[in-house]
Amino acid sequence: MQIVINPPKKTWSSLCERPQVELEFLENSVRNILARVQRSGDEALREFTRQFDRAEVTNLQLTEKEIQEAIESIPKELKDAIAVAAVNIEVFHASQKQTLTPVETMPGVTCWRKAVPVQKVGIYIPGGSAPLFSTVLMLGIPARLAGCKEVILCTPPDSNGKINSAIIYAAQLTGIRKIFKVGGAQAIAAMAYGTESIPNVYKIFGPGNQYVTKAKQLVNQQGIAIDMPAGPSEVLVWADESANPAFVAADLLSQAEHGEDSQVMLVVNDEKLITTIQAEVDQQLSALPRKAIAEKSLQNSKIICIESSATAADFINEYAPEHLIINTKDADVLSDKIVNAGSVFIGNYSPEAIGDYASGTNHTLPTNGYAKASGGVSLESFIRYITFQKLTQSGLQALGPVVEKMAEAEQLTGHKQAVSIRLANLK
Amino acid sequence: MQIVINPPKKTWSSLCERPQVELEFLENSVRNILARVQRSGDEALREFTRQFDRAEVTNLQLTEKEIQEAIESIPKELKDAIAVAAVNIEVFHASQKQTLTPVETMPGVTCWRKAVPVQKVGIYIPGGSAPLFSTVLMLGIPARLAGCKEVILCTPPDSNGKINSAIIYAAQLTGIRKIFKVGGAQAIAAMAYGTESIPNVYKIFGPGNQYVTKAKQLVNQQGIAIDMPAGPSEVLVWADESANPAFVAADLLSQAEHGEDSQVMLVVNDEKLITTIQAEVDQQLSALPRKAIAEKSLQNSKIICIESSATAADFINEYAPEHLIINTKDADVLSDKIVNAGSVFIGNYSPEAIGDYASGTNHTLPTNGYAKASGGVSLESFIRYITFQKLTQSGLQALGPVVEKMAEAEQLTGHKQAVSIRLANLK
Repeated sequence: MQIVINPPKKTWSSLCERPQVELEFLENSVRNILARVQRSGDEALREFTRQFDRAEVTNLQLTEKEIQEAIESIPKELKDAIAVAAVNIEVFHASQKQTLTPVETMPGVTCWRKAVPVQKVGIYIPGGSAPLFSTVLMLGIPARLAGCKEVILCTPPDSNGKINSAIIYAAQLTGIRKIFKVGGAQAIAAMAYGTESIPNVYKIFGPGNQYVTKAKQLVNQQGIAIDMPAGPSEVLVWADESANPAFVAADLLSQAEHGEDSQVMLVVNDEKLITTIQAEVDQQLSALPRKAIAEKSLQNSKIICIESSATAADFINEYAPEHLIINTKDADVLSDKIVNAGSVFIGNYSPEAIGDYASGTNHTLPTNGYAKASGGVSLESFIRYITFQKLTQSGLQALGPVVEKMAEAEQLTGHKQAVSIRLANLK
Repeated sequence: MQIVINPPKKTWSSLCERPQVELEFLENSVRNILARVQRSGDEALREFTRQFDRAEVTNLQLTEKEIQEAIESIPKELKDAIAVAAVNIEVFHASQKQTLTPVETMPGVTCWRKAVPVQKVGIYIPGGSAPLFSTVLMLGIPARLAGCKEVILCTPPDSNGKINSAIIYAAQLTGIRKIFKVGGAQAIAAMAYGTESIPNVYKIFGPGNQYVTKAKQLVNQQGIAIDMPAGPSEVLVWADESANPAFVAADLLSQAEHGEDSQVMLVVNDEKLITTIQAEVDQQLSALPRKAIAEKSLQNSKIICIESSATAADFINEYAPEHLIINTKDADVLSDKIVNAGSVFIGNYSPEAIGDYASGTNHTLPTNGYAKASGGVSLESFIRYITFQKLTQSGLQALGPVVEKMAEAEQLTGHKQAVSIRLANLK
């Protein structure tokens, strides 16, 4: 890990830089995949699955039998753990429901909002070594709470044409019955355009590799909504002498094991802490099964010592981490200074892993500084607010002349006329 | 206007198609503009302003004197009208503020959300014949209510290097003091990257021509948030025999005058209404200053007769109009069936023009079917929710084993370890 002591402000933007993820070179091959799925539907999906996943898939959709078998294969202790997590996620996301009351902005002019679920949503879950069934909960539960009419899930099969059982279990638990064996850019294409087997959706959620990310970007430009731009996962741990160095090291490593491109940052207020924490990192690293990955990602990582807590907060807001662990003695006070972050974990007993799985907060969060402009996935990600308005005759008589004057100043006579013709009729 | 009677469902998707806006051919020239502004800053802005707006601009930022002169030049009646609109917009958007309460998802596990304004936002206002000062209100007022720290505005100068006074007046009214004389893709580049004069921002709002739209798409891929994808404006009027045909015609024309690519749709429940409304359109059209534009846009427009109100609602939800006027005798009941629309206007006395300017609802709305996935601009567009969590020791002891089990099943040992090391310490 690179060590930087009290960096001057003019170096912050380079310290906050993430390694560039260059997706442009993928564009042609992803465009080709999208076009072929749009043209040939299921046939193209089967062909890409043969090519990329080395699997023969006849029925793209999981059968009821396959779902039942998966459910039965999950050990009871894991089912129990998932049940606890699911309840917490449900409780927290249900609390995000707003009460909406009509507003009479002036007498006779009533405006209101109606929360309406996105009717059709698609969830993408990557395959590979780590089966991210927790992401199924994080997306499936708010989709169900929002009341989305159709929720489908795509995930790539292994070379035997099978899907991980825990993913299937989590899906059925959240009420998702339409699960499709297809991954990569071709899965995004299927959900964007629809095929014979897979219905098209209006909004696509979920993480993925660079092909998936590029495909989401491209279909987004074609008018399909996406949850957020995806980048490698990140944590910034802000620690002082009150933090247990072993806990800090474990938190850094839990992020570092995600992938070689994971971002791990440590901000401390005292140089003396650096050696202790580094020693802990080295020791814990040696016991980690995903050691090779973590080692690589630690090479890009930084330890930054900033003595002033006000300056440190400024730096953290400039970095805008996806996850921020504040493990300091006055963590509650310091957390008030945070304006740019995805999710914040406070104190010695709130590791990121808790929020990744089970506390109730969502783990689909903005990376790569996008926390400056956007929050993570929430109940709101699955709904829209439609505005409504209704004027009485006297409401229009009061407000109409205002609109006539403004429309005239914008030289939009037709707009003015839509009011004038009604006012004349009311005279 | 094309007339279609009781269209079978299989024809709906083609009836709902908007004319394709092809932006790909612009990509190279917009990329070039972005790159030059990123490299040469203000110098590039001055050069593009010379080239595209035929204006020499030395100081890109409006001086206090220019602002004062603009304020003084606005007639009192227009100021009064703007003041009424501003209050209504403020009242409606202020009502969108949520009360956020921490949630103890299980004993010792507390999760909450904090609403934080996007710290730096940029507003783009197009130039040209119709000075859209109403859009300044629609974006500037929620930005101020949200508490955004820095709000800047870019708008192109005329060939004398001047900016429309009403735009300046509306900006200062909403508290925006940093106004810049720059338009087009170069303005988007300036707000995305920053220049010597213009600070970079985290999120860019506002309408614009196809160059502006393409530039917003491209900087969005680079991690700058944007309000929403922009397309030509649309209205769908749903009318029955209780609607005043003159009102319906005026509403259709008020949308048609926006631009040649505006989308105007009329859905009626009875063929007999078509002739009456068409006659009204023809008559009112002849008196419209922007007749040439409206005529062109009416050529792409459709009148659709659907007798069943349930089927009509299904069709409207498939079209997902930006603006929907329900001018029928049971408008309130029918409005309950609407799940895909930007903003809905109910009854004979609620023309779209009212919401465009002054009722309080926002007029920055999803076009081109994007209402299926997204709402219009609201207070939420200027804030993010950051999630927080804090566990007590006993909270971690209760939830920790759940996380250990799930992390193990996802084969993320480092995640498990971040919990285990704490639990061991608590024993």
